[in-house]
Amino acid sequence: MIGRLNHVAIAVPDLDAAAAQYRDTLGATVGAPQDEPDHGVTVVFIELPNTKIELLHPLGDASPIHGFLEKNPAGGIHHMCYEVADILAARDRLTSAGARVLGDGEPKIGAHGKPVLFLHPKDFNGALIELEQV
Amino acid sequence: MIGRLNHVAIAVPDLDAAAAQYRDTLGATVGAPQDEPDHGVTVVFIELPNTKIELLHPLGDASPIHGFLEKNPAGGIHHMCYEVADILAARDRLTSAGARVLGDGEPKIGAHGKPVLFLHPKDFNGALIELEQV
Repeated sequence: MIGRLNHVAIAVPDLDAAAAQYRDTLGATVGAPQDEPDHGVTVVFIELPNTKIELLHPLGDASPIHGFLEKNPAGGIHHMCYEVADILAARDRLTSAGARVLGDGEPKIGAHGKPVLFLHPKDFNGALIELEQV
Repeated sequence: MIGRLNHVAIAVPDLDAAAAQYRDTLGATVGAPQDEPDHGVTVVFIELPNTKIELLHPLGDASPIHGFLEKNPAGGIHHMCYEVADILAARDRLTSAGARVLGDGEPKIGAHGKPVLFLHPKDFNGALIELEQV
């Protein structure tokens, strides 16, 4: 059911410093910061040959990243995103197996303009997993 | 400098349950458990179309995964591994930029039989990064 690893997201306390580190020290291809007000984040995408890294920084007081950075002031790996062909079929298969979907269970339009869902970390080995329909 | 994302590693409290979940519920291609006594882990590799997920479980009393699972009893995303062409050149570039390499700074032979190094999470946005020479 799951396909490619679309991206790994890292929450960072200083977006400019993290982007500069990936560009200058790690030598990766780093995009420009993009505000995503619907998601409460500013993101920087790093293009690797086979997948993407998404640097996440809080945008606005209600950002879901604030709590994570309070617990992890240096930042940390926040979530990973698997691609699926049919997000409703994936959701139904997972919930039938007893897994929980975050929020109201309906897909939202994610930062890439495609339907996404987040799965409960406690049901997936402590890892926050995003599913994205591609 | 960094190339492909070689894998993302998830530390799990129950390796059989996690492998079964990825195989049966998430529908992925899941390998057999492999003991890696030199690294204090038993690993299960999950093959995605573009990269791998590595499920990690402690092997032996001195396993480096014990402490992580004590702090994160449900498990969690443990590290991510970037490929590099020349691990000594990568190390020297990173340490020149002020980043710290874990251990004595010399590459070890990793679970894939190739030279690896781990970078200090505090110098990389709280994310534990492995470099693997490919």
